[in-house]
Amino acid sequence: MNLILLEAGDIDASGMARLTGRRAGHVIDVLRAVPGQEIRVGLVDGPHGHGTVVRLEAGTVTLQCQLEEEPPPRPPVDLLLAVPRPKVLRRLWAQLAALGVGRIILTNAERVERNYFDTHVLDAAIYRPLLIEGLEQARDTRLPRVSVHRRFRPLIEDELDQLSSAPHRLVASPASDRRVSEALAARPARVLLAVGPEGGWNRFELDLLAAHGFVDIGMGPRTLRSDTATVALLALVHEALRAAG
Amino acid sequence: MNLILLEAGDIDASGMARLTGRRAGHVIDVLRAVPGQEIRVGLVDGPHGHGTVVRLEAGTVTLQCQLEEEPPPRPPVDLLLAVPRPKVLRRLWAQLAALGVGRIILTNAERVERNYFDTHVLDAAIYRPLLIEGLEQARDTRLPRVSVHRRFRPLIEDELDQLSSAPHRLVASPASDRRVSEALAARPARVLLAVGPEGGWNRFELDLLAAHGFVDIGMGPRTLRSDTATVALLALVHEALRAAG
Repeated sequence: MNLILLEAGDIDASGMARLTGRRAGHVIDVLRAVPGQEIRVGLVDGPHGHGTVVRLEAGTVTLQCQLEEEPPPRPPVDLLLAVPRPKVLRRLWAQLAALGVGRIILTNAERVERNYFDTHVLDAAIYRPLLIEGLEQARDTRLPRVSVHRRFRPLIEDELDQLSSAPHRLVASPASDRRVSEALAARPARVLLAVGPEGGWNRFELDLLAAHGFVDIGMGPRTLRSDTATVALLALVHEALRAAG
Repeated sequence: MNLILLEAGDIDASGMARLTGRRAGHVIDVLRAVPGQEIRVGLVDGPHGHGTVVRLEAGTVTLQCQLEEEPPPRPPVDLLLAVPRPKVLRRLWAQLAALGVGRIILTNAERVERNYFDTHVLDAAIYRPLLIEGLEQARDTRLPRVSVHRRFRPLIEDELDQLSSAPHRLVASPASDRRVSEALAARPARVLLAVGPEGGWNRFELDLLAAHGFVDIGMGPRTLRSDTATVALLALVHEALRAAG
């Protein structure tokens, strides 16, 4: 935890925040904070700053917060992801938030198993704390927006333009020789990256994505598990945008 | 599993292999193979080819193997990794093999907890099957070489040159502005990448790495968990070498 994220309801009008549970445990056991010590804090979807430890009691930490630093800009990458296996998705949430994504658009596809949609891992009650964990790791405050779509075609045809304003759209394809950095040589301000299910998109899905502006990119001949591929591709997209910036 | 990896002892002189357990289960339950069907197989550290299903019995599959394709070249990246938390390392093994590393050099560092070395995750009996799983995912046969080093300084000063012939050495540093692709603009044939512990290398370790040719590279301001960082950095190094190739 490189930043302690506070929810709006955690802070009162005078800037006092009273932490319990996981965050208090971190301050007490990991940071071994003492009264007067300053700790990096941030407000979910809000500014950064620091909190001065006012009081430490058993399992409770009181901070006087000063939140005067602007949050980093929203990450310039949105992700369109075919719902992976629940175990894989559970592992991914924190990593996605840490790597930096503006929006996570989870979609059905032919090769997504139907029961993946019935899992708790798609409940905000489960994934929100995992996203927060990733933001705290990466010292960000911008919670990725998440939406779940059970119908692929209406998503791509009717809803995607509203969900992501990214003019550059990439789709990962094992068959593609085009590198991410080549595809992003035009230096776009924002990218929407599509990552398919473990077995790949089917022909119809690939054609529909292509018809809606998605350009194929690849990472070479090695086939990766979808979580490894997603982390690797997000790193490549961020790096290409950094090179361009 | 995009390839079934056989050990030398699995195949007799006539090319017959009798599979049980995990691999047989994959052929029967996932591939739903029938007699006469061809399946992609490979020999650990050896050639690729195919196996024709000769017989399917309860939990046992017999293949007639033809291994005539050269294996892919050894991945051009070696990894020097400070031993991560056992849970993290367990998750990493298969991903490292899938992304492609020639050698995995696990090392101590000041911020590596001593008890990390007592874990089963460093036993070949645990990690070898996980590496095999990653190779099967990526359709590779070259098992990464693994060595574990409890003393950092002798490793860097005396042993590293024998372990990795890579003339280009990179060390990931959150403070560095140099991108992987910039550091690899000279298009080396082989790269050794160093990734530190969760809390970073200490000053002595960084200086010793620098004195032994390691050039610092960074991925921007976000701090990543060590497994996420390792996957991301390996993707960037592979991509830079692919661009160079």
